[in-house]
Amino acid sequence: MSIAFYNGEFLPIDQQVVGIEDRGHQFGDGIYEVIRAYGGRPFLMREHLVRLENSARVIRIDLPYTIEQFEDLIRQGLERAGLQNSDAEIYMQISRGTASRLHTFPKDTRPNVAMTFKPARALPADLWEKGVAITLLVDERWANVYIKSLNLLPNVIAKQAATEAGYYEAVFFKDGYITDGSSTNVFAIKDGVLYTPPATKRILHGITRAAVLDIAKSLEIPTAEEEITPDFLANADEVFITSTSIEVLGVHHIEDKQIGDGTPGPITRRLHAAYRDMCKK
Amino acid sequence: MSIAFYNGEFLPIDQQVVGIEDRGHQFGDGIYEVIRAYGGRPFLMREHLVRLENSARVIRIDLPYTIEQFEDLIRQGLERAGLQNSDAEIYMQISRGTASRLHTFPKDTRPNVAMTFKPARALPADLWEKGVAITLLVDERWANVYIKSLNLLPNVIAKQAATEAGYYEAVFFKDGYITDGSSTNVFAIKDGVLYTPPATKRILHGITRAAVLDIAKSLEIPTAEEEITPDFLANADEVFITSTSIEVLGVHHIEDKQIGDGTPGPITRRLHAAYRDMCKK
Repeated sequence: MSIAFYNGEFLPIDQQVVGIEDRGHQFGDGIYEVIRAYGGRPFLMREHLVRLENSARVIRIDLPYTIEQFEDLIRQGLERAGLQNSDAEIYMQISRGTASRLHTFPKDTRPNVAMTFKPARALPADLWEKGVAITLLVDERWANVYIKSLNLLPNVIAKQAATEAGYYEAVFFKDGYITDGSSTNVFAIKDGVLYTPPATKRILHGITRAAVLDIAKSLEIPTAEEEITPDFLANADEVFITSTSIEVLGVHHIEDKQIGDGTPGPITRRLHAAYRDMCKK
Repeated sequence: MSIAFYNGEFLPIDQQVVGIEDRGHQFGDGIYEVIRAYGGRPFLMREHLVRLENSARVIRIDLPYTIEQFEDLIRQGLERAGLQNSDAEIYMQISRGTASRLHTFPKDTRPNVAMTFKPARALPADLWEKGVAITLLVDERWANVYIKSLNLLPNVIAKQAATEAGYYEAVFFKDGYITDGSSTNVFAIKDGVLYTPPATKRILHGITRAAVLDIAKSLEIPTAEEEITPDFLANADEVFITSTSIEVLGVHHIEDKQIGDGTPGPITRRLHAAYRDMCKK
């Protein structure tokens, strides 16, 4: 089953516990993480929590729990949800707190911590075998998407547009270069080299992205964190997208342009297999 | 006193009524308005509600109330808060609804309507007499700030930075041109002409901004909705900022640069006086 956590208490997921003047609710003034558990074990939990701390530091939210306390809460939540042996999805968000609405940071306000614990969404079994088609959209987001903040309206709108046009994901480009997807990072393989945009402020520093780069290095696949153009992407030998939820997912078309032979390529498959092995450890 | 409204019910302002999975809370997937009432009468209420409808249409939220119903709710709210004869601030926000977290629009979800009704914040009596200093910051917001959405983290961060540096407001520039402020629009007067950036997607289409342009026309002050540079702004004869809360507020310094004689200029004063007359009608 699914349950939630809010400011110290575990409760039903649909319980209405957030104040109207919560700053997450009124300003998107907060940060979040999504963590996947495999067989009840949260995968790369420490990495997600370190990123949460980084996001919090940048926008100057004092996290009310240490990493160790968050880890403990996550384990408790999975257990209370009966997901201690299941594939699960953990969502956590921290807002700056609840205060009479003013743009400036409120004084003496404690951050609000919300979490949800759910069984992992089942994706189609043949998703990774078949791969997906993506569309390219102009990146209209703000300059600091490396902060994993609650300001996700541009991502929502792009994902909706992609879905309605029959694509699995919208991948963005800005000033002539690929950035990332609405909820994914993007990779291209050309002549045996694995390319992905560098971890600037213009992209989300995906935990899965970092894991894939590590895996590639351990497999002795050359990697290049370099700016790539939409044209380079469309003419790559292989393309794939990554995220906590979709792991490593091959792209068979960028709009009308077929990538490779129209199925996920061999390096994509190898990286996904190695990622899956990592998840199971 | 202050009260709130949530999905059909009036309730205490600090009541926790929002679900964790409200899309306003998790994605900033919603829109808002702030309306000022003078002596209990909501000022330019119709204009605010028309803009709300425009924002909703752009991001495809079906408003659950008509403009007339919103007007009625606002009047009821002021009365229940005992503010029917007071200066008051009405905040309203509509999110896409509550649904299991996924970027794409949920199906069959009803938008959530939250409102707050409060006595107007008292601003220092000499604020308009003295004017304020502002700072200029790079505009890091997304491409569609004309949508009055809940994605306000860049505004929050800019306002906080300005405040900590001793400035009243942060005014943004993008690609070499002034856009607007963190919660205001910007005007400059040069050689008797009133300049303000045009109502593109890069600025909020302020209701006060529009009212001031109308007032200027009725006073036969020539107006120019044109792109202006930071340099033009710093060398203007007069500069002022506008919003629902601060009305028409003179700027005496842009960082170190004094504007005019260091007090709000004559055209600024004339426009503010005429605006105040309008509020009282």
